[in-house]
Amino acid sequence: QIIRKALTEEKRVSTKTSAADLVTETDHLVEDLIISELRTRFPSHRFIAEESAASGAKCVLTASPTWIIDPIDGTCNFVHRFPKRLAITVSIFGIHSWIAFGDMEMMCTGSHRQTPQRGLGQCGGGQRLCLGAPKNLSKALVLTEIGPKRDPATLKLFLSNMERLLHAKAHGVRVIGSSTLALCHLAAGAADAYYQFGLHCWDLAAATVIIREAGGIVMDTSGGPLDLMSCRVVAAGTQEMAVLIAQALQTINYGRDDEK
Amino acid sequence: QIIRKALTEEKRVSTKTSAADLVTETDHLVEDLIISELRTRFPSHRFIAEESAASGAKCVLTASPTWIIDPIDGTCNFVHRFPKRLAITVSIFGIHSWIAFGDMEMMCTGSHRQTPQRGLGQCGGGQRLCLGAPKNLSKALVLTEIGPKRDPATLKLFLSNMERLLHAKAHGVRVIGSSTLALCHLAAGAADAYYQFGLHCWDLAAATVIIREAGGIVMDTSGGPLDLMSCRVVAAGTQEMAVLIAQALQTINYGRDDEK
Repeated sequence: QIIRKALTEEKRVSTKTSAADLVTETDHLVEDLIISELRTRFPSHRFIAEESAASGAKCVLTASPTWIIDPIDGTCNFVHRFPKRLAITVSIFGIHSWIAFGDMEMMCTGSHRQTPQRGLGQCGGGQRLCLGAPKNLSKALVLTEIGPKRDPATLKLFLSNMERLLHAKAHGVRVIGSSTLALCHLAAGAADAYYQFGLHCWDLAAATVIIREAGGIVMDTSGGPLDLMSCRVVAAGTQEMAVLIAQALQTINYGRDDEK
Repeated sequence: QIIRKALTEEKRVSTKTSAADLVTETDHLVEDLIISELRTRFPSHRFIAEESAASGAKCVLTASPTWIIDPIDGTCNFVHRFPKRLAITVSIFGIHSWIAFGDMEMMCTGSHRQTPQRGLGQCGGGQRLCLGAPKNLSKALVLTEIGPKRDPATLKLFLSNMERLLHAKAHGVRVIGSSTLALCHLAAGAADAYYQFGLHCWDLAAATVIIREAGGIVMDTSGGPLDLMSCRVVAAGTQEMAVLIAQALQTINYGRDDEK
């Protein structure tokens, strides 16, 4: 409701780590609402959330139950009201993981630390998520995002990674402006792979559970296990596809969420 | 109806000019239906249409009334069923221009040869299209598409153009997989500019009318007047923005639709 109302109003936009890293009052309002509601019900739980982190709160995963929240992923899309049917998500990871986008939602119960329970990920009205059959990189539809850093060296690496996938004859590369929404498309079988450098644990946490429960793979860009705090990811419908993508990529260093 | 039905079935996919230039039976079925219906009502009119052109029909604009048709723009999205809410368009330009995507449509009466009648472009249930206020390139959301050629020289130029816009601090660049749909987002005020090399007259014709009637600008990538057959375009909400984009771009040569 807060987001829908904000769409009809002028937005005050501020920047965070770069001119392309945007935040609005709406991001703060949504985050505050989600945290205050969850805190009422789970007073002992911890929280990691995008705008709290931007204000200096540390992002540290401990053994305590922790919720990881992105109030609006795709803030630049939100600011520009792009596309006509808005491409943003609200993402909550915790006892339940839940991602909402437009009039759809994806959800499941689970944790990134547990063995996934395949087939529990659900979309919208209870439809089970199901990833597509494995495909070659040469016929893959691959999703990525630019990331917030726009210095010349980072841009060169970003574009060079895209070039490598297009050289490998990927059917297409898409950049839609929301990491989490792209991961949801992957979970729904609408794309074959996703990779990114420069995203955060709140972009990844809920989506990782949902993709794994749909039967998909989420790994580090090195090909090793995912590190939720490492600001980088490869996700795909199959292990083979994820490895092919990881092998094609050059690393872009964005540091770690838990060292900021 | 044909497209919706096809979404539930396995698709036979063929390639045209490159491994990334896809066509399905559905493209042909939709094109044949549109042309046969229009031919019954307008027996003397001429037709330019994507799949007829791929089969060798010449694309020549004459003084005769001509319909320009793209049965499915975004065939790669269609093949991959990307995104979850499909991003493809059906585009018809002629006495009326009409573009359908998802459960929305944009339409207006007019011709690319006439002076646009601003405010006639409509979206969905009669809502008038309206472009956003002018903005600097430094805060612009810019849309583009990769184009079908994937040879190293073409890819270098494509990526270099994207790099120039990101260097100029564009808020973001988006690649959604349908030229016509991207132009519709521009017409709806959801983006500030669009550019592409390697699209065709059927991608552009109806969208050009709709953008101009919404008050927007469509021009050649050289900054001169649009040539519908030149396989390239810049579109923006304002003349200033269109010129800024045109000045930033290096040309990628895709030939002409009327010389193929």
